[in-house]
Amino acid sequence: MPAKTDHEARRRDVSAAVWRVLAEAGFGGLTLRAVAAELGATTGLVTHYFPSKQALIVHALELAETHTRALVPEYEGRGLEALRSALAAVLPLTPEGTEINRVWVSSWDAALADPELHALEKARYKRWRARLKPLVVDAQDDGDLPAGDPDDLVAGLAAFTHGLVVQALFDPRAFPHKRLTALLDAHLTALSPQG
Amino acid sequence: MPAKTDHEARRRDVSAAVWRVLAEAGFGGLTLRAVAAELGATTGLVTHYFPSKQALIVHALELAETHTRALVPEYEGRGLEALRSALAAVLPLTPEGTEINRVWVSSWDAALADPELHALEKARYKRWRARLKPLVVDAQDDGDLPAGDPDDLVAGLAAFTHGLVVQALFDPRAFPHKRLTALLDAHLTALSPQG
Repeated sequence: MPAKTDHEARRRDVSAAVWRVLAEAGFGGLTLRAVAAELGATTGLVTHYFPSKQALIVHALELAETHTRALVPEYEGRGLEALRSALAAVLPLTPEGTEINRVWVSSWDAALADPELHALEKARYKRWRARLKPLVVDAQDDGDLPAGDPDDLVAGLAAFTHGLVVQALFDPRAFPHKRLTALLDAHLTALSPQG
Repeated sequence: MPAKTDHEARRRDVSAAVWRVLAEAGFGGLTLRAVAAELGATTGLVTHYFPSKQALIVHALELAETHTRALVPEYEGRGLEALRSALAAVLPLTPEGTEINRVWVSSWDAALADPELHALEKARYKRWRARLKPLVVDAQDDGDLPAGDPDDLVAGLAAFTHGLVVQALFDPRAFPHKRLTALLDAHLTALSPQG
C-alpha cells in the first residue's frame, strides 16, 4: 500500500509539473527536459512516465480537460440565462480561467500539425457545440434568439466566445473582466429579436 | 550585379522554404533544421540568414504579414457591404486563405510564450480593429448595425470571425466555404436593428 500511495503521489507531482510548464511556456515550451527541471528530477524519471513527446502532449491535453471540467460547472437552468452562464464560464474571468484558456489556445499549434491531436480538438469542439445546442434551442423557443438553424447560432456563439478569449489573452488591459461580460451580454441582447 | 541577384534569389528561396515548413508543420515544427531540410541545404547555411530561433520566428511572422497583405485587399466602399467584404477576406475561403489562417493560429502558441512576439500580436489585433472601426461606424450611421460603442462592436465582429476561423481549421467538412459566408451574412443580418 505505501508503495502505491507513493507512486500515486509521484504521478500527481509529475502532472502538476506538466501543468506549471504549460501555463508558463505553452505547448511550444513543453519538453521532457522542461518538466524534469520543473520537478527537480532527471529527464530519465520523466521518460518513465512519458515514453515520447507525443505521450507527454496527450497527457497535457487530458490535464487541460480535467482543469476545464473543474472550472466550468454543469449547466444549470435553461434558455438564455443558462446560455449566458455557459459562455461566460469559458471567458478568462479568473486567474484559473485565463490559465486554462492560455493552455488551450497554445495547444492549437500542436493540434493543427498532428492528425491524432487534430481529431481530439475537432471532437472537443463538437462536444462543446452539442452541449450548447439545447440551450440555444430553448432560447429560440422563448423568442430570445432569432429563428433559423440552431447549429448555425451555436457555431456563431462559440466563435464569438473563443474569438474574445484570444483577443483578451493578447490584450488583457483592453479586455478587463467587466468588459468581457458586458460584451457577451450586449452581444446576446443584439441578437435578440426583441433587441 | 550577378552576385546581388544571386543573393536575393537565395533569400527568396529561403523565405519560400520557411513558408512551406510553416504551412505544413506550424510554428511548433519551425526549426533551423526543418528549413534546411526543406531547402536541401545545411543548417549552417540557414544559420547565416537566421542567427537564432527567435530571428527565424520573427521572419516567419513577417512572411505571414506579407502573405496576408497580398491576399486581403484594401477595403473598397463603405458601411455594411465593405465590412462584410473585410471580414469575409479573413475567412479560410481559399487554399491560400486556409494556409495563412493556419499559420496565424499556430503562431499564437509562440506569441503567448514570448514577450516580443506577444507585443507584435497585440499590436496586430489593434491595427485590425482600427481598420474595421470606420466601416462599423458607417454601418451604425446607416442603421445597419445597432447603436452603442463601436469599439465593442468591432471587438465582437473580430471575435466572431476569428472564432469561426479556428472551428473551420479543425473541421473543414463541417464548415465548408458556402457555410462560412452564410454564417457571416446571417450574423450581420441578426445584428441589424432592422433584422
